[in-house]
Amino acid sequence: MKSKLLNEVTETLLMGPGPSCVPNEVYEALSTPSLGHLDPHFIRIMDDIKTSLQTLFQTKNKLTIPVSGTGSAGMETCFVNLVEPGNKVLILSNGVFGKRMQDLAGRLGAEVDVLEFEWGTPVVPADVEKKLEGSKYDLIAVVHAETSTGVRNPVEEISKIVTKTGALFLVDSVTSLGGIPVKVDEWKIDAIYSGTQKCLSCPPGLSPVSMSDRAVKKIMDRKSKVPNWYLDLTMIINYWAGEKRAYHHTAPINMLYALNEAVHLILDEGLENVYKRHAEIHEYLGKELEKIGLNFYVEKAYRLPMLNAVTIPDGVDDASIRTHLLKNHQIEIGGGLGPLAGKIWRIGIMGHTARKENVDRLIKGLKEVL
Amino acid sequence: MKSKLLNEVTETLLMGPGPSCVPNEVYEALSTPSLGHLDPHFIRIMDDIKTSLQTLFQTKNKLTIPVSGTGSAGMETCFVNLVEPGNKVLILSNGVFGKRMQDLAGRLGAEVDVLEFEWGTPVVPADVEKKLEGSKYDLIAVVHAETSTGVRNPVEEISKIVTKTGALFLVDSVTSLGGIPVKVDEWKIDAIYSGTQKCLSCPPGLSPVSMSDRAVKKIMDRKSKVPNWYLDLTMIINYWAGEKRAYHHTAPINMLYALNEAVHLILDEGLENVYKRHAEIHEYLGKELEKIGLNFYVEKAYRLPMLNAVTIPDGVDDASIRTHLLKNHQIEIGGGLGPLAGKIWRIGIMGHTARKENVDRLIKGLKEVL
Repeated sequence: MKSKLLNEVTETLLMGPGPSCVPNEVYEALSTPSLGHLDPHFIRIMDDIKTSLQTLFQTKNKLTIPVSGTGSAGMETCFVNLVEPGNKVLILSNGVFGKRMQDLAGRLGAEVDVLEFEWGTPVVPADVEKKLEGSKYDLIAVVHAETSTGVRNPVEEISKIVTKTGALFLVDSVTSLGGIPVKVDEWKIDAIYSGTQKCLSCPPGLSPVSMSDRAVKKIMDRKSKVPNWYLDLTMIINYWAGEKRAYHHTAPINMLYALNEAVHLILDEGLENVYKRHAEIHEYLGKELEKIGLNFYVEKAYRLPMLNAVTIPDGVDDASIRTHLLKNHQIEIGGGLGPLAGKIWRIGIMGHTARKENVDRLIKGLKEVL
Repeated sequence: MKSKLLNEVTETLLMGPGPSCVPNEVYEALSTPSLGHLDPHFIRIMDDIKTSLQTLFQTKNKLTIPVSGTGSAGMETCFVNLVEPGNKVLILSNGVFGKRMQDLAGRLGAEVDVLEFEWGTPVVPADVEKKLEGSKYDLIAVVHAETSTGVRNPVEEISKIVTKTGALFLVDSVTSLGGIPVKVDEWKIDAIYSGTQKCLSCPPGLSPVSMSDRAVKKIMDRKSKVPNWYLDLTMIINYWAGEKRAYHHTAPINMLYALNEAVHLILDEGLENVYKRHAEIHEYLGKELEKIGLNFYVEKAYRLPMLNAVTIPDGVDDASIRTHLLKNHQIEIGGGLGPLAGKIWRIGIMGHTARKENVDRLIKGLKEVL
């Protein structure tokens, strides 16, 4: 390679909030020779991606495709296609990614209402039920795995309340997909988005999205065009699933190769085995952290296995520890965001990263520096 | 690799309207180990990308960055940031990508006016001058290299007319950048977007964008938030150029490695040499096509070197020829779009593809099948 900076990239153990470590097979897939985006063999790969994403999302939704952008592009896709000006939207919010939904929905001219919960605590179904008494929303959205706090929101319970009201139910599964069960059909989720760089262990750049038939109907019945050409699903669907596979935009060919490989690796290991591995490594991490005097920030029942918020002990300087780990041990962990900046570390054990030897390496590094 | 379909990918000579062939160095860059999107070394790579894109665009514009999506995401970025509802927009249109601009600007609530020219012919500066008499537009947009027809629009001459009016001047350089001169500062272009999968010979997935200070001022002075969270430059700029490099969305790390390498390969060869290579291979292609009775569709003065529209002879079946070339010779060429479907082939000699041996291989295949 010519670029000096690329030659100087040091392989790093990615234990932050994403990106996560990428298996060699996925790097190999990434650099498979490019095909044209209308090549019949590439169309076969696209079809295979749709099918394997359906398995991953546990859904029969026909509209299950990767959007050509990172996780936030998936969020944008869901909102911009499903929300029309004046629609009533409720966001159940307890972290950065709930706030982001609120910001986005407002930009689209929705009447946005927010039910807020303290960062580090989960959305409380009983509070949602109370909020919905006598109110009527077109769409209700929640983040499954709040990457900013390490909290798992009880999506299955929330769904039972939301779906009674007739609102569309939108879920952010950026960090949860491929790490804990995400059951789109069983939980009656109408729209869901994820990202490739968390538990799928693929580099960032794509956002798997799935929509129920109800959601697709809402999009097809829109009064106005989707105010976003690039993410307009009424056109994108013709490229991904139409009879004629009409060109919309040039698909990110090589990233799609990588996603195809990454999802196959997960399905080959088996979804239940993958969830079990995340749960076990999370347990192991907890025990090892405890030995060196560190504790989880979130209550046990709502802890995410793949994204661990850890309380920074009093008197310990957040940034200098993280810099030391990166510089001297080639390990990346994340800091806190917003009100949790300086108060927590975010330790990711996502996808390929979720292995005992990685936890051991981190603990060794933390021991040295603390 | 586990995925059977990926193992079955056949290396293909990409001579369509993009993607183009990718050099080995770029594939190698693509599969360099992922770093975190806030890793100091990755920030250095981002800085290097900005600088090298400035050289490529021939601009000092501080806001010169790759957007996290394909070329159409660059188009979306320019329009959604620069256009507010009620703004008057004029599109100079002579192909699919002009039409696309028109569609997009309409979605954003602009008053869209279009000056249309026949497909296969260029935008005529005198007609633009006449159209602008007594009219006032906030933004005027044109495609530099119309990929759908193989026409080069005279951007430099158009600029002289547009910039007198005070309108912002927006240019699509998806197919031109890295193949013919694109002089952003000299031509007083206010906003420009490109794609990685044409003359940059990098896989699709990123869109280099550059904005003048006037354009940045227009964005900063907006009355309303940009109605697109993912592509909001007021926030993205903080990640790419802010003091604190604040996280916005997770950058497509590995695609950015590839872009970094691809642009360095071009700058190492030298811009003038790269333009010369495209011009020479275009000349050579023309002569070789003539020998087998094929002619360019576009008048000589406005032909693009990198995207060649070739008239399909009477009685020749477009699709079966292209299928034969792909199946038996592993060569992809493109068909016509819209009114030119079945009438032209689009033969790309973009970036790494622009080599004599590739033209020879194509001519051999065409000879066999015609």
